[in-house]
Amino acid sequence: MNQSTSDAHILVSMTYASRANPDVSAKDFNEILKQAQTNNAANGITGMLIFNRNYFLQTIEGPRAKINRLLYSLIADQRHHDLQLLGSRELKHREWAKWSMNYASPSEANAAVYLKYSTTVDFNPYLLSAEAAHNLMHDLGAQKQ
Amino acid sequence: MNQSTSDAHILVSMTYASRANPDVSAKDFNEILKQAQTNNAANGITGMLIFNRNYFLQTIEGPRAKINRLLYSLIADQRHHDLQLLGSRELKHREWAKWSMNYASPSEANAAVYLKYSTTVDFNPYLLSAEAAHNLMHDLGAQKQ
Amino acid sequence: MNQSTSDAHILVSMTYASRANPDVSAKDFNEILKQAQTNNAANGITGMLIFNRNYFLQTIEGPRAKINRLLYSLIADQRHHDLQLLGSRELKHREWAKWSMNYASPSEANAAVYLKYSTTVDFNPYLLSAEAAHNLMHDLGAQKQ
Amino acid sequence: MNQSTSDAHILVSMTYASRANPDVSAKDFNEILKQAQTNNAANGITGMLIFNRNYFLQTIEGPRAKINRLLYSLIADQRHHDLQLLGSRELKHREWAKWSMNYASPSEANAAVYLKYSTTVDFNPYLLSAEAAHNLMHDLGAQKQ
Amino acid sequence: MNQSTSDAHILVSMTYASRANPDVSAKDFNEILKQAQTNNAANGITGMLIFNRNYFLQTIEGPRAKINRLLYSLIADQRHHDLQLLGSRELKHREWAKWSMNYASPSEANAAVYLKYSTTVDFNPYLLSAEAAHNLMHDLGAQKQ
Amino acid sequence: MNQSTSDAHILVSMTYASRANPDVSAKDFNEILKQAQTNNAANGITGMLIFNRNYFLQTIEGPRAKINRLLYSLIADQRHHDLQLLGSRELKHREWAKWSMNYASPSEANAAVYLKYSTTVDFNPYLLSAEAAHNLMHDLGAQKQ
Amino acid sequence: MNQSTSDAHILVSMTYASRANPDVSAKDFNEILKQAQTNNAANGITGMLIFNRNYFLQTIEGPRAKINRLLYSLIADQRHHDLQLLGSRELKHREWAKWSMNYASPSEANAAVYLKYSTTVDFNPYLLSAEAAHNLMHDLGAQKQ
Amino acid sequence: MNQSTSDAHILVSMTYASRANPDVSAKDFNEILKQAQTNNAANGITGMLIFNRNYFLQTIEGPRAKINRLLYSLIADQRHHDLQLLGSRELKHREWAKWSMNYASPSEANAAVYLKYSTTVDFNPYLLSAEAAHNLMHDLGAQKQ
Amino acid sequence: MNQSTSDAHILVSMTYASRANPDVSAKDFNEILKQAQTNNAANGITGMLIFNRNYFLQTIEGPRAKINRLLYSLIADQRHHDLQLLGSRELKHREWAKWSMNYASPSEANAAVYLKYSTTVDFNPYLLSAEAAHNLMHDLGAQKQ
Amino acid sequence: MNQSTSDAHILVSMTYASRANPDVSAKDFNEILKQAQTNNAANGITGMLIFNRNYFLQTIEGPRAKINRLLYSLIADQRHHDLQLLGSRELKHREWAKWSMNYASPSEANAAVYLKYSTTVDFNPYLLSAEAAHNLMHDLGAQKQ
Repeated sequence: MNQSTSDAHILVSMTYASRANPDVSAKDFNEILKQAQTNNAANGITGMLIFNRNYFLQTIEGPRAKINRLLYSLIADQRHHDLQLLGSRELKHREWAKWSMNYASPSEANAAVYLKYSTTVDFNPYLLSAEAAHNLMHDLGAQKQ
Repeated sequence: MNQSTSDAHILVSMTYASRANPDVSAKDFNEILKQAQTNNAANGITGMLIFNRNYFLQTIEGPRAKINRLLYSLIADQRHHDLQLLGSRELKHREWAKWSMNYASPSEANAAVYLKYSTTVDFNPYLLSAEAAHNLMHDLGAQKQ
Repeated sequence: MNQSTSDAHILVSMTYASRANPDVSAKDFNEILKQAQTNNAANGITGMLIFNRNYFLQTIEGPRAKINRLLYSLIADQRHHDLQLLGSRELKHREWAKWSMNYASPSEANAAVYLKYSTTVDFNPYLLSAEAAHNLMHDLGAQKQ
Repeated sequence: MNQSTSDAHILVSMTYASRANPDVSAKDFNEILKQAQTNNAANGITGMLIFNRNYFLQTIEGPRAKINRLLYSLIADQRHHDLQLLGSRELKHREWAKWSMNYASPSEANAAVYLKYSTTVDFNPYLLSAEAAHNLMHDLGAQKQ
Repeated sequence: MNQSTSDAHILVSMTYASRANPDVSAKDFNEILKQAQTNNAANGITGMLIFNRNYFLQTIEGPRAKINRLLYSLIADQRHHDLQLLGSRELKHREWAKWSMNYASPSEANAAVYLKYSTTVDFNPYLLSAEAAHNLMHDLGAQKQ
Repeated sequence: MNQSTSDAHILVSMTYASRANPDVSAKDFNEILKQAQTNNAANGITGMLIFNRNYFLQTIEGPRAKINRLLYSLIADQRHHDLQLLGSRELKHREWAKWSMNYASPSEANAAVYLKYSTTVDFNPYLLSAEAAHNLMHDLGAQKQ
Repeated sequence: MNQSTSDAHILVSMTYASRANPDVSAKDFNEILKQAQTNNAANGITGMLIFNRNYFLQTIEGPRAKINRLLYSLIADQRHHDLQLLGSRELKHREWAKWSMNYASPSEANAAVYLKYSTTVDFNPYLLSAEAAHNLMHDLGAQKQ
Repeated sequence: MNQSTSDAHILVSMTYASRANPDVSAKDFNEILKQAQTNNAANGITGMLIFNRNYFLQTIEGPRAKINRLLYSLIADQRHHDLQLLGSRELKHREWAKWSMNYASPSEANAAVYLKYSTTVDFNPYLLSAEAAHNLMHDLGAQKQ
Repeated sequence: MNQSTSDAHILVSMTYASRANPDVSAKDFNEILKQAQTNNAANGITGMLIFNRNYFLQTIEGPRAKINRLLYSLIADQRHHDLQLLGSRELKHREWAKWSMNYASPSEANAAVYLKYSTTVDFNPYLLSAEAAHNLMHDLGAQKQ
Repeated sequence: MNQSTSDAHILVSMTYASRANPDVSAKDFNEILKQAQTNNAANGITGMLIFNRNYFLQTIEGPRAKINRLLYSLIADQRHHDLQLLGSRELKHREWAKWSMNYASPSEANAAVYLKYSTTVDFNPYLLSAEAAHNLMHDLGAQKQ
């Protein structure tokens, strides 16, 4: 049996935190985002990305085999390090179906949303539980609409 | 006892996926739909049909004996093949009572609804669970209203 | 102890189906309804009646002893036959408190409501479960408001 | 359509209280019980009967049409009067499937079971709610096993 | 309508705390208990009594009208004072059906049961919530069995 | 320890029915209401009173010791008799915090609300369960707003 | 994509009723059972079969595509007719994992189990709801162990 | 391991009551509030403060180690005494994320909110349960918005 | 009003972690335990203490005012430092009613119980959530019985 | 802040499937297991491993940072390939606290347990949902005890 088709209808979600490498500029951030949006649209991958100067917090969702392959690429990606999975689970339906990659970054307008789930004044995704990360992303997504 | 009356008040729902035969044209699709609407209205059958060039995904609901007879006709129908039941269950009430046969087909406007329940960018009902098929149909039905 | 007072605060609801006798005219229907409304208002009885040419489906609610006496009268009533109880239960509060006898009969406007709970295109209360009869009556009541 | 088959798979339960006529002897009680057991076994009817010198409390369960016909006979039966339905409802399964007619009558051994659901020291089924009657019967049934 | 029969099948429970009058002896306690047991058995009243030198905590259960009359007598009883109702509620079934008046008083063997619900080392029912009083009585009742 | 402070933060609610003495006039009713409102405001007592020519149905809520003292006064009050507690329970929060004593009496406008919880056409609080009395008061309170 | 692998990890269950053809002997029944047990063990199919002289009631469980292919064979099988699906649903785990095909047929010892879910004294699976059929099979399976 | 980082992502909430020292003026109150708001904003602490002439009721929320350090300071603070913790618990998210320190004090406009949770007419936080204190604060917070 | 009596029936539980001072010997541990047991028995305080060479984890339960006074003493106690409250909550009943101070310390026999709730091989209460600390204590308590 | 300590008390569980490389012998399997048991005991990691000739299915549980580092090693391990995460989630407590690495492999005795969660007769973890994998492991673990 061909592995890539065997779980072709299992939708999964993965969420990870990572540290941006110091030499990644604001322009790089935008390219990372655009690149993700283009690749994902072609591959049936959707999700949400939160970033500031120091950290990434990202959720990717799609078929299980593809999401695992994307995890391997992300681990190998030189623009960030210390990637830590916060959680991975099966989905009854995608939560970010309308976005190849939605995004948000800290601003004055959404400071209270970050603080709601954080112990620290500054955003640090390594200090979040999987549930807090999930709820933070959805509060930020709702605020953008 | 006459079988056809013995379960005359059991409402059931059946949902199946099938592959359209290659020689079925867009005009044929419309005739299939009209024919279903006419027959169903006379027989107390209601439901929802999703189709694109390649696949059908259909829910039919009505009295148990009639729905089983309709299943036999559908299996024998030469316009599609590989019919697979995704699920069949008893209903407390019809979910499509207002339609002899409601319908939808993929478009740009509803692409995110398909993607919400699918691992693939293109619509393939064989990859859906019974629950995902059910929810997809209702999301599409709600969008039409 | 006097039986008629012993359960004076138990509210019950009874629902039955029956077949109209062939010689009952449309005018008779209206008189049945008016008579019920007058008697019930005086006796603290409330309820809902659905009828067409062939069938009655009725819910009556009030104190247990009175509802049982009304059941006896209904069984003896020559204008219908084959009376079958679909259910009887105690109530925390009346569901039809605003009507001495609310009513509905099939029309084009409410055809989808009947079909929602029925296996047949035509209304036949003998084919309904107690729960379906209850929900049908409330959907029809809501539509009238 | 033949009414008697149209609801052939709806199981219902009916529970009623009645007053024994003064001229009904202890021997009559036993005959009532035996007669019920014989008739019920042949008709697919099951149930539970509680009686003392003054009252009957009985639950009968079986197909809806038959239980309604049995109700008519019970109303016409000269050995008791003041028959009042405490409740009637559909069943997912019979509760007294092992008995054509189980029975109990008050004794010293089960006095606390009667008192548990009663306001009075002596058994009076007219003072019971449908739920209390149901639970009393099952407590008495469990004590007999 | 005769009030005393109008609610003849509503079972209620009342729980109160009171202070024993200083001149009530241990012998008096036993007589209070015996008297309650005799009267209650005749009146269809059941319950539980906890006492020590200083306090009573009692639950009485029975028909609503009788329990209210008993409340009036208890308020007028010279052997205790400061009677305070902790709660009164309707019952689906009696909780002390096997006892005309069950009882317990503090001992070494049940000290941990008292402490479980109390802030103080010594028993003081005025410091209990209705729920704690209820649970304390049942824990003590279970320990006696 | 001083009893009156020992349970100073336990909020309780008591509900009772009583019969108005025949010589109590409509003017007396108004004075009863005004007097209750004045006394309650000073004592931290809140509640709801329903009355007609024949009956009172009242809920009082406040600290446990004060509510018990008020119960004693109400029992001794010569303007009504046959006071029966329908229920008494602890509260997480007052339900009538905005009223020192809210009130309602039967009228054409609220007849359906009374009927919703009653077996009789005329208001008789002795026939109500504690739950029905509670819900009746809140429906009437909501209608006044 | 190959359809037969695309849903290779979806476990489903199908339950149907059918009428045995008159010329099917007791010996034939045994062969049907043995044949099913052999084929199923090789194909990862499990289930439960109830039969008497007149009817079959069977549940089959396994991967969705295989169960659909087996349904086609069963419809074409000449030893029974009037096959009606009672229900089909996805499983989190097999319910009959220990049996390639468990079985039961009516006897004196299990008569009360059949009656528990039936309106009729004799076994007739067309009169069962999907839930009653499921529970009947499990009660019979438990009795055999 | 450094203790101060080991629980850096555990959010907790603490709520306490205290008595204002008699020499604390209205001006002092305002300074206490401003000082709290400034310190908290810098430390990632949020919360709600209720005060009148006599009492404080305060909730503080933030990382566990910092909240414990703040508790130590509060115990040592000379402007109040008799500090009593009403409760402390872990949070899935902050409830006062938008305020470095929200506040309210009794007025005519919010008197009914205080009374809703209090046995006394005047505000006394020592008489509140942890749950009542929590709900009072949120009702007052909602009223300010 | 006297504060110490005003909440005399509120039972609370407090749980804290602390670091043993390096000069505290095994003999000191035993004295701490005995002293707690003697004081608590006299004061109506109950609880559970876990300790090893480096840490204490303790739950104390009793009336709110006394538990707060005990907290002040514990903060001032020179035999440990860095006391951090993990949680404090109101109780419906004591969980350690049978012990003035139950206790446990790590051993080979209970190593798997510690590991069940810990990220580290060695016991460190600062790394536990309030819920994990609670469950660890109860698992250890159950193992001792 | 040092990342490795920042989430030191978050317990997580990861479950993955992988394909054994063809040159891995039965002896190698035993070494893999022993090596895992030794390393895990030292690192506070616990879990369960299922393997046959072709596949691994493993759950590892421990502190989040360590489990992520272990994931990196497992991805790099040459003895298997195609590692796919089935799920990762936070734990309130370890499920395999008693085992540094529990294990099972298919045998006649446990064949029905594998079949219970599988569509195929042979074990293939890629066809399992995360929930089925979890339940399969626990059923096998329970069978070993």
